[in-house]
Amino acid sequence: MTAQPKGRLIGVGTGPGDPELLTLKAVRALQEADVVAHFAKRGSSGNARAIVSGHLKPQIIELPLLYPVTTEINKDHADYKSAISAFYEESAQAVANHLKAGRIVAVLSEGDPLFYGSYMHLHVRLASDFPTEVIPGISAMSGCWSQTGLPIVQGDDVLNVLPGTLSEFDLTRRLADADAAVIMKVGRNLPKIRRALEATGKLDRAVYVERGTMQNTASMKLAAKTDDTAPYFSIVLVPGWEGRP
Amino acid sequence: MTAQPKGRLIGVGTGPGDPELLTLKAVRALQEADVVAHFAKRGSSGNARAIVSGHLKPQIIELPLLYPVTTEINKDHADYKSAISAFYEESAQAVANHLKAGRIVAVLSEGDPLFYGSYMHLHVRLASDFPTEVIPGISAMSGCWSQTGLPIVQGDDVLNVLPGTLSEFDLTRRLADADAAVIMKVGRNLPKIRRALEATGKLDRAVYVERGTMQNTASMKLAAKTDDTAPYFSIVLVPGWEGRP
Repeated sequence: MTAQPKGRLIGVGTGPGDPELLTLKAVRALQEADVVAHFAKRGSSGNARAIVSGHLKPQIIELPLLYPVTTEINKDHADYKSAISAFYEESAQAVANHLKAGRIVAVLSEGDPLFYGSYMHLHVRLASDFPTEVIPGISAMSGCWSQTGLPIVQGDDVLNVLPGTLSEFDLTRRLADADAAVIMKVGRNLPKIRRALEATGKLDRAVYVERGTMQNTASMKLAAKTDDTAPYFSIVLVPGWEGRP
Repeated sequence: MTAQPKGRLIGVGTGPGDPELLTLKAVRALQEADVVAHFAKRGSSGNARAIVSGHLKPQIIELPLLYPVTTEINKDHADYKSAISAFYEESAQAVANHLKAGRIVAVLSEGDPLFYGSYMHLHVRLASDFPTEVIPGISAMSGCWSQTGLPIVQGDDVLNVLPGTLSEFDLTRRLADADAAVIMKVGRNLPKIRRALEATGKLDRAVYVERGTMQNTASMKLAAKTDDTAPYFSIVLVPGWEGRP
């Protein structure tokens, strides 16, 4: 019996939005891949897929992994957890089928794959069974502080990365104790985030960025943003950098 | 009088070590630049310079910015602060001279320029006077968790980025309160870091990485590392990721 050709899994960070922020390694992986998989909502091809569109081979096999429609279920509800868990299992199975057939599968991940990326749900299910490589990407937060030219941490600064979904109490407590902070998943959490920044005396330092590095990006001092509407993937930056030399 | 041609400053993140982790944008900036500046210790050309060596034009003007020899002065001492501050002023002046002559100056920064990078000391001195762009790079910590295939944060995890130079009390307090943590600047702080991880019950989860993504990289469970010697730029990762779907 001939040994089965063995596939290879590559988690490919696509960076935050600007296609020029792809790494050389990511571009090479896209050239090598037989299959390119990406997560997306139904009816959308997703940002990661758009970022790499100029680098896909014409004969590439595409594998869209479409999230089940679960926005009407609360995230803490058991139904959500079981739906999303089943989805990750099925997705891992679909990728595994290509890997078993000896194909190289690149799974796109917006930003950095192992930093809040969906790719990691496939990684933990597949990396022990198949040769696996993870290619880091520029994170959304890094894209935001670079675009706005805002030094975020220096020297012995402590950086806290906080999801905006935390309770107001936890946000306030953690912001009070951080030299610098990045608040992710802003969206409808913005009024709460604003109150927590105000309570800790950090509102004046805070900068709001939406769609960082994308063509339709916008940024401003949070204090100057008059409304409290924001896309889910907007970010608030609170730079450290006290007492610099 | 003819208008003076105006130079342009570009902070270029080179990523953590693997030259393939340069972004397409960084490579383009190196092609466009008239001058490439890099920070280094006297007697060394520095990692950032080594990472980009395959992308420098033959006719490029190089501007090494050599740190003053201050390792024998304590970092908290006023003499250190005034020496390093004078060094940044002189470096900014040297870059400004090229900018005033209308040249494009790329300043290399290992990792990500505005994330603990030396470039930021030039940025704050020059960005208000010259057109400036910052190109983000893959951070050392991202290189480390990608290389080791370690999902660092997911969902609503809080990430703490902590310099190993913090006191044992502060390290312990902050590790106790973090879902996930990255400890930078490990070096001779390793025994203290190990004690803080042990005290918070997180030693078993901790992974040690030195020279992430470089050819001579090494990584292991911190608990399995028997000695307490480490290079300054080694990193300890404490992954979050409890209760994943």
